[in-house]
Amino acid sequence: MAGMVDAAAIAALDAEARKGLELLTSGEGAGADFLGWVKLPEETDDALLDDINATAARLRETCEVVVAVGIGGSYLGAKAVIEALSDSFAPYRAGTGTRVLFAGQNIGEDYMAELQDYLRDKKFGIIVISKSGTTTEPAIAFRLLKEQLESQLGREEAGRRIVAVTDAQRGALRSLATTEGYKTYVIADNVGGRFSVLTPVGLLPIAVAGYDIRALVEGARNMQKATLDGSDTSSLVYAQTRNALYRAGKKIEILVNYNPKLHFMGEWWKQLYGESEGKDGKGIFPAAVDNTTDLHSMGQWIQDGERIIFETVLSVETPSRELRIPFDEANLDGLNFIAGKRIDQVNKMAELGTRLAHIDGGVPNIRVVIPALNEDTLGSLIYFFEAACGISGYILGVNPFNQPGVEAYKRNMFALLEKPGYEKETAAIKAKLGE
Amino acid sequence: MAGMVDAAAIAALDAEARKGLELLTSGEGAGADFLGWVKLPEETDDALLDDINATAARLRETCEVVVAVGIGGSYLGAKAVIEALSDSFAPYRAGTGTRVLFAGQNIGEDYMAELQDYLRDKKFGIIVISKSGTTTEPAIAFRLLKEQLESQLGREEAGRRIVAVTDAQRGALRSLATTEGYKTYVIADNVGGRFSVLTPVGLLPIAVAGYDIRALVEGARNMQKATLDGSDTSSLVYAQTRNALYRAGKKIEILVNYNPKLHFMGEWWKQLYGESEGKDGKGIFPAAVDNTTDLHSMGQWIQDGERIIFETVLSVETPSRELRIPFDEANLDGLNFIAGKRIDQVNKMAELGTRLAHIDGGVPNIRVVIPALNEDTLGSLIYFFEAACGISGYILGVNPFNQPGVEAYKRNMFALLEKPGYEKETAAIKAKLGE
Repeated sequence: MAGMVDAAAIAALDAEARKGLELLTSGEGAGADFLGWVKLPEETDDALLDDINATAARLRETCEVVVAVGIGGSYLGAKAVIEALSDSFAPYRAGTGTRVLFAGQNIGEDYMAELQDYLRDKKFGIIVISKSGTTTEPAIAFRLLKEQLESQLGREEAGRRIVAVTDAQRGALRSLATTEGYKTYVIADNVGGRFSVLTPVGLLPIAVAGYDIRALVEGARNMQKATLDGSDTSSLVYAQTRNALYRAGKKIEILVNYNPKLHFMGEWWKQLYGESEGKDGKGIFPAAVDNTTDLHSMGQWIQDGERIIFETVLSVETPSRELRIPFDEANLDGLNFIAGKRIDQVNKMAELGTRLAHIDGGVPNIRVVIPALNEDTLGSLIYFFEAACGISGYILGVNPFNQPGVEAYKRNMFALLEKPGYEKETAAIKAKLGE
Repeated sequence: MAGMVDAAAIAALDAEARKGLELLTSGEGAGADFLGWVKLPEETDDALLDDINATAARLRETCEVVVAVGIGGSYLGAKAVIEALSDSFAPYRAGTGTRVLFAGQNIGEDYMAELQDYLRDKKFGIIVISKSGTTTEPAIAFRLLKEQLESQLGREEAGRRIVAVTDAQRGALRSLATTEGYKTYVIADNVGGRFSVLTPVGLLPIAVAGYDIRALVEGARNMQKATLDGSDTSSLVYAQTRNALYRAGKKIEILVNYNPKLHFMGEWWKQLYGESEGKDGKGIFPAAVDNTTDLHSMGQWIQDGERIIFETVLSVETPSRELRIPFDEANLDGLNFIAGKRIDQVNKMAELGTRLAHIDGGVPNIRVVIPALNEDTLGSLIYFFEAACGISGYILGVNPFNQPGVEAYKRNMFALLEKPGYEKETAAIKAKLGE
């Protein structure tokens, strides 16, 4: 962490940060009904992981494609981990195992029609993820896909290829799963959507995609232990620093990666922090860039625009592959001075050069380093960001675990669609629109 | 356009906006050497489009994959148009014609190694796009891919599958193309990267992907004519409105779409506006969201966070496909009240409901509507955003056509990599790092 940051201003938040961490374990802070994620890695037992792996193996045997149906936290965590671990060109390769695709994370008519076309000649399965079973986006997608699967396979066989992740007892999806005999997993009451990637919500799609959920949970477990026993203070430092910067007028935090596979980790992070902190008229605005791609896009603004931003750089120490820049006799492109170097050495100098340039340009920089990109490091990273988010929200003085603002558009949408029970709202919104 | 916007504040910018538009045609404003894009659609002749289409047809005949190598404006325009027009699941479908992939838009060692693996058993070609031929990212990617192609096919046949888009006379890539006899297209001196999608930079990859570049240019031509003859004032209105909002303290503009295919139009727009306006310590920070996906992520912040944002909603009137929500006897999910409706009708009510909720929440909203998603409408949209960007930059009082800040990281990177000619900078940066 460096550049234009007042060390004293950060240190001044020491006590508040410690207090924040304490509230996460004591359950005496705001939103304490949603602290199930704090000790989740430790409490996740082998039996559950075995069960998820067995279900994943069964789906992988019978399905070329598994569609994970969910939105928000029931989409972003699995998407982020799978993208981070996948070959960049996996979508273009045939015959590399069961694909996990996503639906119910939008209301795109073209998207759903094209998905149904694609699935027409495929052996597919569905993981439907919804606490209530009535959230509009996944409910529409599931209604369509269930109908399609049943018409392709018959109701009984379709039922064997559908897994529901939902409330333990209540709700439409639980009822349906009971009626149809679907395999189910439980969304606990005390883990909010954006903190749910290490529950079956995230673990099942990740396992179906072929990744090691045991290592993912183990990585999180190590970070949980180190965070809660005080031996790793990185989540405190991160939470303090970003709050100090926010108080100093830095309104936007940009999560920066130098590996395109981390793009959706940025999206996951944006939900985690945006939804936890963006309330009561306050909160840092979370944005993300993929470098060096975006140095040729947002780079100009970051270097020279309004000085209301800071950056958090997510750096991966060692790539998984090794590739060196070849020597070229003619050297017309002038690259021979780096011939023989690994591409990542250039990438790292781009990262360092950018950090120095941005600090010189008045953009404070935080750096988060993971040694490599694998299940273990991602598990640790996820827990780190979650813990820091809870602490940060408490320093900010909000309830980091609710999301009251998400209801506003839904209420209007239901009123506009004349949903039964919304008669008053329908009349009011029509009057407002002059109808 | 609605909500918390002071109509008088917008009207007060009438004269400045008109003046801005005038400067774009008179060439008396800042950055006038880069106004080639203003009359480009009209000046693009059929012979060029025929030639690009012929080259594209030749590549499509001989290549399963064509890799477009470029960064910034040499990447985002083509990527945005191709994604907007493609089937959402095209990457997963085999045998649907030549694929356009991208490289040289990052320095990912894993990315390049995985791309080379993927191409190992493919018939592929390369479009290399670089004014100078020495920009680090595309130069590294091209060096690797050229070597691979030559080793797969021999130098002569490889030369027939490489097309260079570069400077008319100068530079490393021009020299190489002349030596090797590559087919070439020219990057004009007076069109900056972020305004280059309607030049061969964007048109060639778009044509190779199978889309109608004639319709794209025609759409832009219609918007050019209407903008310059004053019959369409939308670019003026957009430029005025966003500047009025900025002056009123709205520091962040969020481009919102309700169709996931528009994700990369958002990325293209971020470069266009961020690079044009983010300088001299000012400029609106451009961000983008894909709804309704991100209503379950950034939605909370937008509804209830700091009131320093406004939104520009990009709405597509009619989807390409038709799909209706099925009726379900059991109706456990409670969706029968919308059974029989098109999915897009729900999407449109989500859009309207969100707009109303955000306006109520203090987020001014601008709305840009296109009738459908096709080459013609995208051409118009591109020209609209470009014209508005030039006008907006002039209202803001910056040179909208330079990008001095993009050099800062490159200088540091070259110094750190000890590039010949950077000896002084290398010494300085090493001293700074305490080495």
